Amino acid sequence: MSDFEKCVFRFGNGVVDGAHSTQDVLGGKGAGLQEMVSLGLPVPAGFTIDTSVCRHYLKYGSLPAKAEQQIANALSWLETSTGRYLDCPVNPLLVSVRSGAPISMPGMMDTILNVGLTEASVKGFGLQNGSRKFALDSYRRLMQMFGVIVFKIPQVDFARILAAVLETEDVDSDSELSEDAIGSLADQFAALISSKSGDSFPQRAHDQLTLAIETVFSSWQSGRALHYRRLNNIPEEMGTAVTVQAMVFGNRGMSSGTGVGFTRNPSTGARELFGEFLMNAQGEEIVAGTRTPMPIAELARTMPDIFRELDDVTQIIERCYRDVQDFEFTIEDGKLFLLQTRSAKRTAFAAVQNAVDMVAEGIITKREAIARITPVNVADILSPQLDLTSIPDVLTQGIPASSGAAAGIVALSADQAVQMASGGDRVILVTKETSADDIHGMAASIGFLTACGGATSHAAVVARGMGKCCITGAREVRFDEKGLSVTIGTHTFKAGDWLTLDGSTGRVFEGRLGIHCESKNHPGLDTLLDWARDISSIGVHANADTPKDAIAARLGKAAGIGLCRTEHMFFAPERLSSMRAMITATNVKDRTEALALLLPAQQQDFEGLFREMAPLPVTIRLLDPPLHEFLPSLEEINADITYARRDENWEHLLVLESLRERVQLLRESNPMMGHRGCRLSLTYPEILQMQVRAILQAALMIADEGLDVFPEIMIPLVASAEEARVLVEMIHQAAAEVLAGHRPIQYSVGTMIELPRAAICAGQISRYVDFVSFGTNDLTQMTYGFSRDDSHTYLKSYLDNGIFKKDPFVTIDESGVGYLLKMAIAQIRSVDPSIKIGVCGEHAGDPDSIRFFSSIGVDYISCSPSRLAIAHLSAAQANNCERTQEAAEISLPVLV
Amino acid sequence: MSDFEKCVFRFGNGVVDGAHSTQDVLGGKGAGLQEMVSLGLPVPAGFTIDTSVCRHYLKYGSLPAKAEQQIANALSWLETSTGRYLDCPVNPLLVSVRSGAPISMPGMMDTILNVGLTEASVKGFGLQNGSRKFALDSYRRLMQMFGVIVFKIPQVDFARILAAVLETEDVDSDSELSEDAIGSLADQFAALISSKSGDSFPQRAHDQLTLAIETVFSSWQSGRALHYRRLNNIPEEMGTAVTVQAMVFGNRGMSSGTGVGFTRNPSTGARELFGEFLMNAQGEEIVAGTRTPMPIAELARTMPDIFRELDDVTQIIERCYRDVQDFEFTIEDGKLFLLQTRSAKRTAFAAVQNAVDMVAEGIITKREAIARITPVNVADILSPQLDLTSIPDVLTQGIPASSGAAAGIVALSADQAVQMASGGDRVILVTKETSADDIHGMAASIGFLTACGGATSHAAVVARGMGKCCITGAREVRFDEKGLSVTIGTHTFKAGDWLTLDGSTGRVFEGRLGIHCESKNHPGLDTLLDWARDISSIGVHANADTPKDAIAARLGKAAGIGLCRTEHMFFAPERLSSMRAMITATNVKDRTEALALLLPAQQQDFEGLFREMAPLPVTIRLLDPPLHEFLPSLEEINADITYARRDENWEHLLVLESLRERVQLLRESNPMMGHRGCRLSLTYPEILQMQVRAILQAALMIADEGLDVFPEIMIPLVASAEEARVLVEMIHQAAAEVLAGHRPIQYSVGTMIELPRAAICAGQISRYVDFVSFGTNDLTQMTYGFSRDDSHTYLKSYLDNGIFKKDPFVTIDESGVGYLLKMAIAQIRSVDPSIKIGVCGEHAGDPDSIRFFSSIGVDYISCSPSRLAIAHLSAAQANNCERTQEAAEISLPVLV
Repeated sequence: MSDFEKCVFRFGNGVVDGAHSTQDVLGGKGAGLQEMVSLGLPVPAGFTIDTSVCRHYLKYGSLPAKAEQQIANALSWLETSTGRYLDCPVNPLLVSVRSGAPISMPGMMDTILNVGLTEASVKGFGLQNGSRKFALDSYRRLMQMFGVIVFKIPQVDFARILAAVLETEDVDSDSELSEDAIGSLADQFAALISSKSGDSFPQRAHDQLTLAIETVFSSWQSGRALHYRRLNNIPEEMGTAVTVQAMVFGNRGMSSGTGVGFTRNPSTGARELFGEFLMNAQGEEIVAGTRTPMPIAELARTMPDIFRELDDVTQIIERCYRDVQDFEFTIEDGKLFLLQTRSAKRTAFAAVQNAVDMVAEGIITKREAIARITPVNVADILSPQLDLTSIPDVLTQGIPASSGAAAGIVALSADQAVQMASGGDRVILVTKETSADDIHGMAASIGFLTACGGATSHAAVVARGMGKCCITGAREVRFDEKGLSVTIGTHTFKAGDWLTLDGSTGRVFEGRLGIHCESKNHPGLDTLLDWARDISSIGVHANADTPKDAIAARLGKAAGIGLCRTEHMFFAPERLSSMRAMITATNVKDRTEALALLLPAQQQDFEGLFREMAPLPVTIRLLDPPLHEFLPSLEEINADITYARRDENWEHLLVLESLRERVQLLRESNPMMGHRGCRLSLTYPEILQMQVRAILQAALMIADEGLDVFPEIMIPLVASAEEARVLVEMIHQAAAEVLAGHRPIQYSVGTMIELPRAAICAGQISRYVDFVSFGTNDLTQMTYGFSRDDSHTYLKSYLDNGIFKKDPFVTIDESGVGYLLKMAIAQIRSVDPSIKIGVCGEHAGDPDSIRFFSSIGVDYISCSPSRLAIAHLSAAQANNCERTQEAAEISLPVLV
Repeated sequence: MSDFEKCVFRFGNGVVDGAHSTQDVLGGKGAGLQEMVSLGLPVPAGFTIDTSVCRHYLKYGSLPAKAEQQIANALSWLETSTGRYLDCPVNPLLVSVRSGAPISMPGMMDTILNVGLTEASVKGFGLQNGSRKFALDSYRRLMQMFGVIVFKIPQVDFARILAAVLETEDVDSDSELSEDAIGSLADQFAALISSKSGDSFPQRAHDQLTLAIETVFSSWQSGRALHYRRLNNIPEEMGTAVTVQAMVFGNRGMSSGTGVGFTRNPSTGARELFGEFLMNAQGEEIVAGTRTPMPIAELARTMPDIFRELDDVTQIIERCYRDVQDFEFTIEDGKLFLLQTRSAKRTAFAAVQNAVDMVAEGIITKREAIARITPVNVADILSPQLDLTSIPDVLTQGIPASSGAAAGIVALSADQAVQMASGGDRVILVTKETSADDIHGMAASIGFLTACGGATSHAAVVARGMGKCCITGAREVRFDEKGLSVTIGTHTFKAGDWLTLDGSTGRVFEGRLGIHCESKNHPGLDTLLDWARDISSIGVHANADTPKDAIAARLGKAAGIGLCRTEHMFFAPERLSSMRAMITATNVKDRTEALALLLPAQQQDFEGLFREMAPLPVTIRLLDPPLHEFLPSLEEINADITYARRDENWEHLLVLESLRERVQLLRESNPMMGHRGCRLSLTYPEILQMQVRAILQAALMIADEGLDVFPEIMIPLVASAEEARVLVEMIHQAAAEVLAGHRPIQYSVGTMIELPRAAICAGQISRYVDFVSFGTNDLTQMTYGFSRDDSHTYLKSYLDNGIFKKDPFVTIDESGVGYLLKMAIAQIRSVDPSIKIGVCGEHAGDPDSIRFFSSIGVDYISCSPSRLAIAHLSAAQANNCERTQEAAEISLPVLV
């Protein structure tokens, strides 16, 4: 805690009490003013009361005595150095009292201008400025602000009085009022304050100042400030600083003015002074929009010297802060004053451009440039965004599962989506949920909206994989019984109606909104990501199931394919029938025959992948999902059986009935923990053999084309070392059969670690493999006992109630799932430090998770091609931090 | 490895080379003979060649030179001490060559008698015994045994010759053959051997002996021996010893005889000499059953001196071995010889009686008595068993999920079972699988047969809980479409047909087989279990959901109720409707109202439990299963909707449609990992509040009756410390509301640890609770990613292929799930050593698992009342072993 020995910091007129003070203490505004004065820039003198005083005031309801003393001293100094005095009727000092928090909370707290004017000093102030009307107007503005902010009198009461006066005077705006009318306005405001607050407007300037300071401190706890902090994760206990500063007036005539600006274009990042200004105006007039400001370039014409000075001084500030600045200035009687500077808010596009430019200008290093870009910046650049100019009512809000925006016509089934898209329409698929069966429809659509599921449901995962917009878990989406329409919130849609999704926020809109689609080829971003790859110590691979995915992976500069899910290859209609024949086979011979039909197609897939990726490695995961996913649902079969009976198609009926029996047999109560993954390979070795054959025959083919090929075969869902041992042996045996008599093909064999038991026994498992890859989706499911497909029902309330800080399917749960990872890695490294360790869950595309993976010694991650840029950036940022040796600290488990 | 310095051990005639040698070295038979000679008992002289020689022979195909030398020396000694000589035509030595493995493998290896007889010595042997016919018969028996065993000539070839001779002679049995006919038989046997083996029957007695020894060694690797060892987990590398012993003959006339006996009745355990004998016979005649032996008591009448001697010497042996013995004896010309002794095989009933009696007799200690009883003994005593006299063909074999046997009539649904049982029939419920909805039908049945599920499926768990017979995963059980019949293997059953289950082996039989139901009140067992409870350091509690269960728990001497599953209370028809109203409520008010209707029933349940168990603790788990388990299935609702439409019952239709919507909403793709356990309490706090209210109101009621009551409230499915913190607070708050103004009630609050994450974070979770209980069923499911309900499909092949040594749902997986337990316990103890740690999964009734739990410092286990006896025994046996401090060795995880 502060002891308040030094809690008030003066600035201006050659004094800088708090040079290089931090924003924590002086707030952003206060620190910026100290800095500018240090740089010798023109800043009206004043002083800042630090945040510790705010915290004391909020706790005890009064200022600490030491602070009061220092404020009095600083005020004396301010009076002396400006030659103006509070409560001096002849030469009054007017000050602004502004809030300024350590983290910018624009507009959330209060500011009062013109503090110091009283009935007694209006005259003197009029003489000072050569205009009684200006003085009266300043006085009534003070009363209005003070009334609203300090006395909490509704703004509308003041507005009502003003409107009446305007009507009486028959003018349109207050600037047209006569001096007398303004005088009358001031009288009426004073009366309003007396009547509403039971107290008259303070006629001692010192009282005004004290009340203003205390009120600004209190505004830290206003409802809107609280709300803003909660939204932006700003700590409650910070408090705000208050700056008291001599007023300067941009409204003293045509050689005065005021403006706001950026040292570079905040939209494009271009290196040019950018902003707006108004002559003869105060800052609030720019904000209020009552007059139309001029572009700042115009200033070069009207006041070339001032423009040049402004350009010079803001360049100085930018160099000092080593970042683009957003500043406020006022020109009083031809003299320039800077009132505020801070790091500029900018578009993602500009942020990247600034970072790259500043490296070129020698202002920052490449590492700093990388640290300045957020993953959200990258996502923003790469996804289409809603045009924010006119946003209609939100129909419902779901889970923002894959960013970007999309406007298209509604399709209510995958088949419908395909049909509509074939006509050239942009289609949005709206369903209860999606499954692997819907892939064709999803490929044909530009966005998905589902009633169920969460941020890692099937639809969400596929959407991010495809780089498409997706909103899941939109519970107000209800389908009619016949599937002919869907009601979203209050509005009912039929197929073909227009709908717009904002995947970045989860909002759903009726109709066709404008979509702003920035170029996906941002040259600055490419440069930045090149630097990122140089810096990062973790390899970034992509998940890719098709040659098309592989092209995206190459474009995104993936270091290889870290996960190819072979099951996706079997859902194509022409393959599905062979797949089903394989599944319904009741003996090894029939199964092997059906598999033989699938082999050429699989081989062709792999050839395509290898060709695109050569010479980079391609990791292929053996068949993973339970077999019933490839079969039609019982409902579908039952319907077909009804038709077959009606049509007396007895032969087909027999086939269907045997299919039904098989489907019933394969049905599982918890398929996620069922007969899948390597359990399939162990019960049906023929499947594994076919896949290994396809992989290595493809590899031979590509090698014959003169390309380098390096397949990595990955076994899913291993729970025990013995499974790994048996399966690795089976793979080598199948491989040896293919390769006998051919050129040697280098390949490696690894396992997924996606069950808690696999993590616990990772050391033993790793004895049999060349690499392991953590499947953190399934590992999270099993560790928590949360089904990804169902958990949204309670997970949302967990997050809302703060029981969970983060969704464990989005950001890795470091203390639970992450602990298993660390334990496993420690074991694996102790067995063989050369084993390659990867992560291929959804977390591989999440920046916080990537930082964690990097810190525990993961060698590579594999994410959707659409997340590659973010992953490259995050991997580099992770490496920017000091690498903690957490993995090494884990004590090795004692296995018995 | 042995260096063969001493590998042949003589015994008899005052010589004991291997007193107190172990069975590992000399085999059971060899060690027994040495021991008997040490005790001064009458044993024909001989020597044993130890197992190291067998191992050498099997590896190199020849005996070690040192062994050959020692055999020759031992043989010389045997010749001298018997005064008979191998290859002496006048006074030939005849010996038996017998196998004898360290672990008894009855009948699996070879034995050859009468070794030493040749053409040349038959005459001398005839003179020795005063009967040429006896000598010829001994010779042809030797050739037959030798031919079959050494030359591998099929037994049937000898039998065919014998049959022809019997026909020619026109007699019924070989004992009636004339001397000449036997001579002819001997000639024909010799010719058969020459023709079949290409070698004539060896006419040098030394050659016979060498061949016999080597053949007996080789028989270690016969197919049946290999098979037996695999079945009984006997190590392959042990090898057998061979004993060469001077022949004595029980068939030398009416003062000779042979018999087998037990020192105590092997069926009842009664303390009496028990066995059978035949005068003028060889041992094989008793075994072959060609003549009917006399009870051994008869010997007291016919040869009282011999009987008295036999009684004396076998008592000496029993005292020496401190266990009931099974012995063989021969009387040769009025002189008693003992040929073998070994620990007697006995029924479970006898085993318990023997153990208890021997403690009373001061022969063994209580701890030894406990160590001698196996859990299988206890299960055998407590469950009805199939009458094994005539077993028909097995229809199919499923998983033996709950032991015991049951014969009853088939019911094909729970409702049908209730209806049939109400008529007084004994019913066996045959279904695809069971669910909580079927409990009423299961309660009405005496056994369950299901087509699906494994050893820990719903049916299996309930069956063991109810102490009923159950077979699950019987895949050859197929139902017809309309549910009117079931086909098991080849046989189709309608409701009401008789069926018999053997739950101890998983076999299913057609018809009504005899069931042997031993008394469940075995006084010896009660005594033994009293001792067990005194010894064991782990508390044995019972799972009990109803007052009836609680009575069983008290009878089984449970130390409390370790798990009361409150959900079972809601399935009663009159409560189910309130439960459904609670679930379908769309707002808190409706839900609270429905819960208020359930509260009195819950309270009554708890009162019943507390009353039965007072003053022991009762642990009540809050509602655990997903809510949809309480709702009808979609199929049922759709059928009802069809009826309602047909009947134009619009009001009911509306209710049904809203119910359907709710069911669809609650449907989960993986309910095991869904919205259940404490997730329900967090989303619907009203449920928790009702349950806590019911528990504490019941406790107050029982305390008012003057009984001691100690409720323990347990939170299921906790994944994070924050859940535990919030819920414990909610419970205390709800409890405080009930107890305000009443007498104080001591209660404690704990959590289940049944998710991997809970185990990983157990230290943090335990900060908020008084006790934890590992739910090892769910923990095993999640750690392996094995759904209990589905895993039988692949788990069986895992076990068959040896990928898993044991079913992890039956015996705790020590290196995976067990590791999590150890880690959790280490954490919990480091937070607070006083926290009570329990286990309440199915493993709590498994002896191997109990041993593990005891070794890692678990304080108590809770099992089905029907497993209490086994658990008490196993807990005591676990404590009999040295307690390993494994838990303490676990390094504490570094949580970040």
